[in-house]
Amino acid sequence: MRIRDLPTPALIIDATVLAQNIETMSTALPGAALRPHVKAHKCTALAAVQAAAGHRSFTCATPREVLGMAANGLGEDLLLANESVDPARLRAMAAAQDSARITIAVDSVSTIDAAAAAGLHEVLIDVDVGLPRCGCAPRDAGRLAAHARAAGLTVRGVMGYEGHLMMVTDREAKRAKVAEAMDLLLRASGDVGGDIVSAGGTGTFDLHDGVTEVQAGSYALMDTQYGTLGLPFAQACFVVGTVVSSNPRHAVVDVGLKALGMDHGNPAATTWMEDAGSDGAAGGIGAGTSTDVWFCSDEHVTISSVPGRTDVDARVLITPAHIDPTMAMHEVAWLVRDGEVIDRWPIDLRGW
Amino acid sequence: MRIRDLPTPALIIDATVLAQNIETMSTALPGAALRPHVKAHKCTALAAVQAAAGHRSFTCATPREVLGMAANGLGEDLLLANESVDPARLRAMAAAQDSARITIAVDSVSTIDAAAAAGLHEVLIDVDVGLPRCGCAPRDAGRLAAHARAAGLTVRGVMGYEGHLMMVTDREAKRAKVAEAMDLLLRASGDVGGDIVSAGGTGTFDLHDGVTEVQAGSYALMDTQYGTLGLPFAQACFVVGTVVSSNPRHAVVDVGLKALGMDHGNPAATTWMEDAGSDGAAGGIGAGTSTDVWFCSDEHVTISSVPGRTDVDARVLITPAHIDPTMAMHEVAWLVRDGEVIDRWPIDLRGW
Repeated sequence: MRIRDLPTPALIIDATVLAQNIETMSTALPGAALRPHVKAHKCTALAAVQAAAGHRSFTCATPREVLGMAANGLGEDLLLANESVDPARLRAMAAAQDSARITIAVDSVSTIDAAAAAGLHEVLIDVDVGLPRCGCAPRDAGRLAAHARAAGLTVRGVMGYEGHLMMVTDREAKRAKVAEAMDLLLRASGDVGGDIVSAGGTGTFDLHDGVTEVQAGSYALMDTQYGTLGLPFAQACFVVGTVVSSNPRHAVVDVGLKALGMDHGNPAATTWMEDAGSDGAAGGIGAGTSTDVWFCSDEHVTISSVPGRTDVDARVLITPAHIDPTMAMHEVAWLVRDGEVIDRWPIDLRGW
Repeated sequence: MRIRDLPTPALIIDATVLAQNIETMSTALPGAALRPHVKAHKCTALAAVQAAAGHRSFTCATPREVLGMAANGLGEDLLLANESVDPARLRAMAAAQDSARITIAVDSVSTIDAAAAAGLHEVLIDVDVGLPRCGCAPRDAGRLAAHARAAGLTVRGVMGYEGHLMMVTDREAKRAKVAEAMDLLLRASGDVGGDIVSAGGTGTFDLHDGVTEVQAGSYALMDTQYGTLGLPFAQACFVVGTVVSSNPRHAVVDVGLKALGMDHGNPAATTWMEDAGSDGAAGGIGAGTSTDVWFCSDEHVTISSVPGRTDVDARVLITPAHIDPTMAMHEVAWLVRDGEVIDRWPIDLRGW
């Protein structure tokens, strides 16, 4: 099957670019130095490629991601990097410990007690390093670790996510701010003990000293927001749409906001030609003519027309502004190479 | 089961408010005067309630919505109010004509020819009434109707969506602008013929003269954006979240942007008490203390803490800013009344 034959909207992944991104990252952060975050793709087939590149430990955002990874033989070392007090889901993860190693983030007595009561064995202390979200105050980390150990849990170390720094554009300013945040985490690590200091993301992957692992996820597929940072990763994921209505001013593509994460704003759009769309062409799949996005509706994006490229039934490539929620909206991703569809990857870790 | 027992994030629908909204609308636009838009909820169980209120004709946004409605016995008169040139999907809808009446919007020779080639029988001419999206120029409507009839299709009339006017806040200005848009549509109707003049939405449902039917959908569940318009419909849908991390300044709720349509911005948040959460309490389910939303992440919303109401394991109600994409992100909605969960409604029309 060719890309043109896919029913649209069709989420496609350029196999060549994906492989390059994974290789670039695994060179920088080999093996256990990277704990890939599966929330960015929610796809066990893609996680298996990351595992084949040497990363056998994974970060998850939801219990369903943890259980899905375990069920697919990817459970060597799974971290749920979020808090949960849901007894049923915690018990389900505890039951999966027979075949998987599962560690859960905790940041309070309540979350520690919930994990222990459910029969989970291992935790990380989640520390607030500046992002106002989960994580205990650094000064409380040692006390919580002691509480966890008293509850019978193994404390493997600490994690802290400097998400507020991902989009800092000045690299040296970013390095300094990351160092400040990691100083908080490393001091907490001294109080907590354990082997793991887990932090970071795609936007800070090469700015860490002292952590034992980085939780990056978006690097594999990328999006237009991360694309502004000058990172050594290229856009590997697009949503293919079909022009369903067209006039000399604007064209309407069947990729709407139900197929796109919209919290980072509108996507980008480029025209597409089947012959020029192969990975072999200069610039790859996304190298068509860029055109303005007017607005997104539930089922459509309205773009500026491009003569000869946006007639009805033409294909247009839409580049998501935020990859993580975009993946969560699709049932399947199509792996492509040289214009051919070479595999069908279910987005099998959706939901909670 | 009580609301508190639902795994979160949990999409809930207040059965009492839903019934009130549907009754208010069916009083204003009884029977075929309303063609409810199922894109706003993607749920055949909810559509069945609308059908029971007298609306037997429905508007759909995707072929999957059309096919799902037909397969669930709701196919008396289905309009796909969007263009498609996908041969396989058009043929699937044509095959469903044995058990359902299916009409598709067309706005070009290409879309007409695709519908005819697939074996579809009936079309509406989609007319541009001012929203830069689908729809032919009004002056072309008669010519396209003739082309459709020559291709063997029955032309049932015209449709035109004045989506650019939904959020005009001055009611008299809105009425005048809607009248201008509908004047374009009615003149096209004169050129096209047929019995149907279909237009409108929740934001303009009571401002139409001369159309035969209104395509409103959001009125049944509502969202914070439509909630600003002073419409006679109340909020019926919320996402219940659990506080998973909390300190005196902020609390973190497990309802993130993967559970919320974000194109209209952040949701609203209110605290919730089980006892005060029944429909019988003044103000209904959503009548807790409003609290500030700081920001949304993939799996979380960070809110200002409310003493005694946002400790870990407390429930918080999140009100979506845009209902349509929010519904599309959930597998199921839970129907609730007086704090009890009374039904489980699959969101069975997701995807394309």
